Amino acid sequence: MLRSLAQLSRRVEFAAAHRYRRPDWSDERNRAVFGPCANPNFHGHDYTCTVTVRGAIDDTTGMIVDLGALDRILDDEITSRFDHRNINLDVPEFADGRLVPTGENIARFIFERVEPRLPAGVELVRVDLAEDDTLSATVEAR
Amino acid sequence: MLRSLAQLSRRVEFAAAHRYRRPDWSDERNRAVFGPCANPNFHGHDYTCTVTVRGAIDDTTGMIVDLGALDRILDDEITSRFDHRNINLDVPEFADGRLVPTGENIARFIFERVEPRLPAGVELVRVDLAEDDTLSATVEAR
Amino acid sequence: MLRSLAQLSRRVEFAAAHRYRRPDWSDERNRAVFGPCANPNFHGHDYTCTVTVRGAIDDTTGMIVDLGALDRILDDEITSRFDHRNINLDVPEFADGRLVPTGENIARFIFERVEPRLPAGVELVRVDLAEDDTLSATVEAR
Amino acid sequence: MLRSLAQLSRRVEFAAAHRYRRPDWSDERNRAVFGPCANPNFHGHDYTCTVTVRGAIDDTTGMIVDLGALDRILDDEITSRFDHRNINLDVPEFADGRLVPTGENIARFIFERVEPRLPAGVELVRVDLAEDDTLSATVEAR
Amino acid sequence: MLRSLAQLSRRVEFAAAHRYRRPDWSDERNRAVFGPCANPNFHGHDYTCTVTVRGAIDDTTGMIVDLGALDRILDDEITSRFDHRNINLDVPEFADGRLVPTGENIARFIFERVEPRLPAGVELVRVDLAEDDTLSATVEAR
Amino acid sequence: MLRSLAQLSRRVEFAAAHRYRRPDWSDERNRAVFGPCANPNFHGHDYTCTVTVRGAIDDTTGMIVDLGALDRILDDEITSRFDHRNINLDVPEFADGRLVPTGENIARFIFERVEPRLPAGVELVRVDLAEDDTLSATVEAR
Repeated sequence: MLRSLAQLSRRVEFAAAHRYRRPDWSDERNRAVFGPCANPNFHGHDYTCTVTVRGAIDDTTGMIVDLGALDRILDDEITSRFDHRNINLDVPEFADGRLVPTGENIARFIFERVEPRLPAGVELVRVDLAEDDTLSATVEAR
Repeated sequence: MLRSLAQLSRRVEFAAAHRYRRPDWSDERNRAVFGPCANPNFHGHDYTCTVTVRGAIDDTTGMIVDLGALDRILDDEITSRFDHRNINLDVPEFADGRLVPTGENIARFIFERVEPRLPAGVELVRVDLAEDDTLSATVEAR
Repeated sequence: MLRSLAQLSRRVEFAAAHRYRRPDWSDERNRAVFGPCANPNFHGHDYTCTVTVRGAIDDTTGMIVDLGALDRILDDEITSRFDHRNINLDVPEFADGRLVPTGENIARFIFERVEPRLPAGVELVRVDLAEDDTLSATVEAR
Repeated sequence: MLRSLAQLSRRVEFAAAHRYRRPDWSDERNRAVFGPCANPNFHGHDYTCTVTVRGAIDDTTGMIVDLGALDRILDDEITSRFDHRNINLDVPEFADGRLVPTGENIARFIFERVEPRLPAGVELVRVDLAEDDTLSATVEAR
Repeated sequence: MLRSLAQLSRRVEFAAAHRYRRPDWSDERNRAVFGPCANPNFHGHDYTCTVTVRGAIDDTTGMIVDLGALDRILDDEITSRFDHRNINLDVPEFADGRLVPTGENIARFIFERVEPRLPAGVELVRVDLAEDDTLSATVEAR
Repeated sequence: MLRSLAQLSRRVEFAAAHRYRRPDWSDERNRAVFGPCANPNFHGHDYTCTVTVRGAIDDTTGMIVDLGALDRILDDEITSRFDHRNINLDVPEFADGRLVPTGENIARFIFERVEPRLPAGVELVRVDLAEDDTLSATVEAR
């Protein structure tokens, strides 16, 4: 059979608090750049994160990746890091203003942690991170 | 025309942070009762709030309520109070542990604030507050 | 078995154009009351109509109503009347300004046409008509 | 505070196979009554089951029920019975043609199993069982 | 940090009426080619338009584009042109049969208007225009 | 007009039963590899299949493909083969353990059947097959 490559997209959800705020900026500048996302006391979202991988369809199992193994990676790298957390305070890489927890930065962060853990022959294509139905960020393999 | 009563449901969304935590309880007891919702640094949700009102269909306009007026009430009492806020810190009625910001308490709070502002002849039937696709609280008129 | 009553909800969709406009009012008054819904050249929606019926669960079939028969009623009374139509021009009961095509009036219209066609022993509980994800009208049995 | 009753709705999902088929009927009669749902080799759905309970809001916790306890009941009575199962073959109460696995019958079955397990003071209001976006069955408390 | 490119997708909605109809064709030919979309009195949809842009993640803000600026462009070029309008009558570029208001043509029209307004360094990747849950058109950068 | 290529995505749904099971493996090995998807008595899903094609926008009709013709292809190759079927038993290419009915294999199967039936000038870009909201497989043109 000729067309043996396929992609698999798996979605996980997590509820987290965040704010967009650079500690080295004044309140005024934070509000001017980030709008209501700079409100000092945090707000939150039900984030939806969709991870897409690509690989050859195994002739025996019909799968490109062991779904249980993929789920464990997503659980370790996404759910257990972010769910019911405050990203600015509880996720060390974002703490103390190191990284503003925008969708773009969170998607890149997840991309960089999931990619090295995938089994041989499975490629990370894309990480989509949606804050809500109207806004999402995507980081793709280059 | 005989059947002149109808209901109208309007949905608004807001992103907010919260935690379930009683300041008069130990960390252990908070965690035992509230689970991960007690994580001290807050988490958040994209809340969906659906407000349902009932009234007679006006023969001239075909409406039971002026939608612009209803939207202003929902904006004042829901969006402007909760959107991009930390419910435990920014909403005075929930601050300092006065009310645990569960779905039940938020729905009741919204019910009590929206109801007295509705125009004459329009009755508040129900407030639904969903944290995500799997959990929602409802307060109905009695 | 004791609890033999159940409800069944069936959803159909239709795409239609409409405007809110009373021919006996001035343009100014139409716009003041109906806002952008009074734009003279029509706009439109993907309407979602959910019809809920109630009846006894038949011990033999496990059903409260023949779904094929219900679907034919909904097709006749909803889809074939409204789908790909202009409600103000193509649906006689709404034409010439007789009824403003609000959600309330459309839901009531559908309720009144579906109810007499249901088989004996099946009761119409409710018609919900949603214009979009944020606004819906409901007419219930009294 | 006066209005202390609230409802909580919790949704679970399960993937299951079924067919509508009475073993005491001919193939022809099964097909005439049940249509494509009588296909002998089973088909399936991603069912969505929403359980709604009612109770007094606890002044201390802000909750009407311990959500962890409710989730364990739903896991026992719904997910573990139905998820990744064939309802006609794997769920004893539906096996051997005892009950046709219609939405009505499954909703009633779940209602009858969840209700006696709820803690004192918590009432089961309603079980909704949706096969897909267009069809759902509901059993309510009487 | 190596992977600095990301995409951002923003969704807006608008309700509009349209018909598919070439004034230089007979009624019969319009109906043969366009089916019920040729109904003369217009029908309508709740359109969903998703605009995807790509750029480098700014190290300071964590963003690839000022979301407020992007929203103003989408409001000017999409919402204010199409929402509560009749595309065949109210949008000059589609009026008098110049362009049939198919999803393909509307998506291309939006692509061509949004692209030149994006700030330097931000690239338009894609415009998706969905009529409903089952049909969408996409125009991508070449 | 310069940008004349566009894509069109059309979604169909079907309800089907399946299991993941190789007849040449022991029960233990099937369960170890496929988890609960190997349950012998089948389970099922409401599958969503989205087919994306690309072509030049016709200047006269504004379309890249005759939607009625596309729908007939999707009905023949997807709905009529899979809806209300047991994929392991009723779809010959998957029967007797020839192909494990994973999302990857079903998406590839649909890709290979739809592609040769498209009219000249219309290219198949992608077939997405979702089992539910959290898992989908994609096969793209190479």
